[in-house]
Amino acid sequence: MTHLDDWRELGQQLRVDSIRSSSAAGSGHPTSSMSAADLMAVLMAKYLHYDFDNPDDPRNDHLIFSKGHASPLLYAMFKAAGAISDDEMLTFRKFGSRIEGHPTPVLPWVDVATGSLGQGLPISVGVALTGKRLDRLPYRVWCLCGDSEMAEGSMWEAFEAAGHNALDNLTAVIDVNRLGQTGPTMHGWDLDAYRRRVEAFGWKAIEVDGHDVAAIDGALAEAVASNGQPSVIIARTEKGHGVTAVADIPGKHGKPLDDPDAAIAELGGRRDIHVGVAKPDFDGRAHEFPTGELSLPVYEPGTKEATRKAFGDALVALGRARGDVVAIDGEVGNSTYTEEFSEALPDRFFQSYIAEQQMIATAVGMQVRGWTPFAATFAAFLARAYDFVRMAAVSRASIAIAGSHAGVSIGEDGPSQMALEDLATFRAVHGSTVLYPSDANQTAALIPQMADRDGIVFMRTTREKTPILYDPGEAFEIGGARVVRRTDDDAVTLIGAGITLHEALKAADALASDGINARVVDLYSVKPIDAATVRAAGRETGAIITVEDHWAEGGIGDAVLDCLAEEQPHPVVVKLAVRDMPGSGTPAELMAAAGIDAEHIADAARTVIGRSREHSRDEVGSGRRE
Amino acid sequence: MTHLDDWRELGQQLRVDSIRSSSAAGSGHPTSSMSAADLMAVLMAKYLHYDFDNPDDPRNDHLIFSKGHASPLLYAMFKAAGAISDDEMLTFRKFGSRIEGHPTPVLPWVDVATGSLGQGLPISVGVALTGKRLDRLPYRVWCLCGDSEMAEGSMWEAFEAAGHNALDNLTAVIDVNRLGQTGPTMHGWDLDAYRRRVEAFGWKAIEVDGHDVAAIDGALAEAVASNGQPSVIIARTEKGHGVTAVADIPGKHGKPLDDPDAAIAELGGRRDIHVGVAKPDFDGRAHEFPTGELSLPVYEPGTKEATRKAFGDALVALGRARGDVVAIDGEVGNSTYTEEFSEALPDRFFQSYIAEQQMIATAVGMQVRGWTPFAATFAAFLARAYDFVRMAAVSRASIAIAGSHAGVSIGEDGPSQMALEDLATFRAVHGSTVLYPSDANQTAALIPQMADRDGIVFMRTTREKTPILYDPGEAFEIGGARVVRRTDDDAVTLIGAGITLHEALKAADALASDGINARVVDLYSVKPIDAATVRAAGRETGAIITVEDHWAEGGIGDAVLDCLAEEQPHPVVVKLAVRDMPGSGTPAELMAAAGIDAEHIADAARTVIGRSREHSRDEVGSGRRE
Repeated sequence: MTHLDDWRELGQQLRVDSIRSSSAAGSGHPTSSMSAADLMAVLMAKYLHYDFDNPDDPRNDHLIFSKGHASPLLYAMFKAAGAISDDEMLTFRKFGSRIEGHPTPVLPWVDVATGSLGQGLPISVGVALTGKRLDRLPYRVWCLCGDSEMAEGSMWEAFEAAGHNALDNLTAVIDVNRLGQTGPTMHGWDLDAYRRRVEAFGWKAIEVDGHDVAAIDGALAEAVASNGQPSVIIARTEKGHGVTAVADIPGKHGKPLDDPDAAIAELGGRRDIHVGVAKPDFDGRAHEFPTGELSLPVYEPGTKEATRKAFGDALVALGRARGDVVAIDGEVGNSTYTEEFSEALPDRFFQSYIAEQQMIATAVGMQVRGWTPFAATFAAFLARAYDFVRMAAVSRASIAIAGSHAGVSIGEDGPSQMALEDLATFRAVHGSTVLYPSDANQTAALIPQMADRDGIVFMRTTREKTPILYDPGEAFEIGGARVVRRTDDDAVTLIGAGITLHEALKAADALASDGINARVVDLYSVKPIDAATVRAAGRETGAIITVEDHWAEGGIGDAVLDCLAEEQPHPVVVKLAVRDMPGSGTPAELMAAAGIDAEHIADAARTVIGRSREHSRDEVGSGRRE
Repeated sequence: MTHLDDWRELGQQLRVDSIRSSSAAGSGHPTSSMSAADLMAVLMAKYLHYDFDNPDDPRNDHLIFSKGHASPLLYAMFKAAGAISDDEMLTFRKFGSRIEGHPTPVLPWVDVATGSLGQGLPISVGVALTGKRLDRLPYRVWCLCGDSEMAEGSMWEAFEAAGHNALDNLTAVIDVNRLGQTGPTMHGWDLDAYRRRVEAFGWKAIEVDGHDVAAIDGALAEAVASNGQPSVIIARTEKGHGVTAVADIPGKHGKPLDDPDAAIAELGGRRDIHVGVAKPDFDGRAHEFPTGELSLPVYEPGTKEATRKAFGDALVALGRARGDVVAIDGEVGNSTYTEEFSEALPDRFFQSYIAEQQMIATAVGMQVRGWTPFAATFAAFLARAYDFVRMAAVSRASIAIAGSHAGVSIGEDGPSQMALEDLATFRAVHGSTVLYPSDANQTAALIPQMADRDGIVFMRTTREKTPILYDPGEAFEIGGARVVRRTDDDAVTLIGAGITLHEALKAADALASDGINARVVDLYSVKPIDAATVRAAGRETGAIITVEDHWAEGGIGDAVLDCLAEEQPHPVVVKLAVRDMPGSGTPAELMAAAGIDAEHIADAARTVIGRSREHSRDEVGSGRRE
């Protein structure tokens, strides 16, 4: 057989196996796999360099299926490469199997989870950028894209970023099978429509018949030869190619074939071709940047500083100490203070411009290769990348994210710039950590821990300067809380974090002058929460006021209530939070209007203490009525 | 004076007033306003058709500042048009003023809030689509865009949608002032870089010197003449144009001028030009579609149906009854069942393809003109559009959103397709409504109420068929809850919604066979929550188990805890929720693995009842320790 025949046979095997696994599962996307089978056959047989026995080899290429629903094809490739057995392939979509419905990194050869369309290419850009600027190794990144997902804006953030950064180590393959889930795509088989777009964004575009293995070979060779430009192969394919019952027929998306045996027969039957995928063909180790002693910034108690500034300062300190730390910003570095990192460590700073999805995708791509990224923008604009954060958790990615300009206390800019939902959204990310420091020294103490922590680690920072409460060098663990004020006779507990902790302290002063002792807790670690400290405060004071510069849903108040859910007896909890849409104004005016300033906290405390005294007087027997 | 002189003078006035208002505020974005002043001067003097006395006139043009931070320019235009006084303009960014830091619809001439970049153009596309296909009126939509925001993927979703829909009633003006917040943009003054991109996406592109009023006049005329294509004016401008101290100088973003008096003098001093903006120049009323009797679908108790299917059925019924109802889908209409609407009422169905940001923006744009949009996709993928939803709330928009395929109970497709954070994220949207119906008849009953309700109204639907519990025609109010099972002697309350309600009912059966009576509450309205029913259940049974196919943060459990926060005595609350990252499997396997199936609910109930009996025995005195 010639190579061409081998490749054709391999393509047929990949189709057959895609049909077999999805038929065994009773669900899945065989037709979306069949369209790209020839493209992937030639890729794996000749162009991919990957040591399946050593998936962590830094020299390996990266293959990312942006069209994650073509997972049957990916698993068929893994089988052909000898990475998984035929039996394991046939556990597709079964409970407990690592051959999941869409690819996830529970498989060692999968870099990131895909299946939310439009994410694989942006992440591939992140990996390619890592190859060029961090690892400094000549591995290639291959990304299989669907034509439907070309409608996602995030794809164009990726095309723009890759073009701008001249990522000629990146090749996208667009499987233009013209049929989406419900019907034809916007551009059908108009390959030129895609060509015009991607060329305009600075890519080298190559059109090809995606079922002509010789042409595919030529296209891949041309892509590899591209110099100074990322390359994209725009392949005309048929969904369900090779099987008459489904080929190019609408309504065949996302379901197993009706007659798999007939289809397999039409494709020439089962094969058991094994492909010896080429191993990396160069020597070299990933570049390392210098490391040094960690010397965190210090802030003098009694002075004032913004936690966003402390974040920027501490990130530079961490970057100097650890060569694996990198920073990415969404073109607001003079607000988030990553500009300090960009000046001190320009080789490890990445400007994402105003493209938050690409910013998070870049971070995810970098951690694929073991780097420790910190991504930063206004916390409000992280909402733009929320699906990327959600999927990063499915990818088991470890990334640090900082969001500045939290809450109404940013003042005059108004609600479009105010993060008022970020604690809720980041708490609702699987395995996440949510930090909201209240002082600059505490911020600095938490930054190195963010770098060490698994999962999505979010820090919310404050725009305004706030008083330095803690001594430099004091220890603050993730998962802790700090009791800032307490007596043996506290009648109420005030729990705040960030800017509201300072309001709580002022409220405690006001209460003290009324003869009321208030415990004050700094809940700088919102998730994980220091449940023991919160529960003790509840038991010992009987009443808790939570106060947050955030909507009432999903933030500090709800985190506190959650850890008290099973407490008996249960303290009264009063949640102070932002409840009306703010406008513009000074920070003080807006915090007062939202009812989260010292005066409102003190008032709420007086009310709850009064009520609780009344309750104690009235109460005769115990607990709940039955 | 010639027209040209008038326009130049007006441009200078808009600059002077942008400087004056931001100087009075002590913050704001004068330089970003000054770059676009000449463009907007010619637009308002000659091309805009808008009756400022009648902002609700359906024939009015629409002017949307996608670069919302150029609000000083917008307000200066409103002053020049006589809509606001000079005094009011100078209340810019002051507490209580409607002249907010970024534009919001508290001003009657502002359609939508902007300030989160990359949203104004997608929403403009929605308004333009409304003009073409719903209102069927020849008003024009003008959208002022920044060059920095061209990096946002959402802009390219908009360019793609407008090109595809041939929206020649839409003109975007890109203010290419080459300087972003922190430094130069990606493309600087390379106007051709923008031209290539937008032309590739099917737009007519016109390059112009953005400070040459004659050239601007020509460009706007050419834009208006565009036939069958949306048009974009790519204008080379200077940030801070006209004032030597700031013109084209980096580091001048987002701050008032150091010496406003000198700047105003350099611009020729204050002016008080009034522009008689042309009123709409055509007759006509907005198109109306037929209305009819509402005849909701009915489902036979004892049979099974998926709530997503009931959503699709009921949406058709509502659409037949109400001509203002429209549907938009993200190319998954055979999953969300909007395909029924697309077949029954094709004139009011909009295919957004896989572009969720544009989907929500289209909905926001349509409600600007009084239409009642329902947007639908997998609930997981609504995460992609979260910033658009956040901003829609700032826009005081009323839109209905349906998210299907909630939770692990979707089964084999795996975590990328499972919405496990949607209740949390939608609860944390200001003024939102969050519905999660448990049965098809209930779903149908809620759909018309979604159309009548203000704000962001989200419905979560279930992929799997679930038993019909309720009779057709039973009333279910938003804000209610349904006690599905109760006795006078309930020892525990089980609260679920959607698929978990059915598990709770099975658990109650199992408990009953142990001689334990369990109250079962259907929390179909998660926000607003029926606090009275929840509190009564807590008081009367002493223990609540919440169960949800959602992460533990921000969903049903937290909503229940929130309304119990101040309850004394307080029931024990046990939250059952998804806590580990799921994989693939059958719905039953995955619900069991997550601990949210009937067996786990019954076990949790037995445990909590045991504990609570022990607690009652041990308890001597009352309440909290002091």
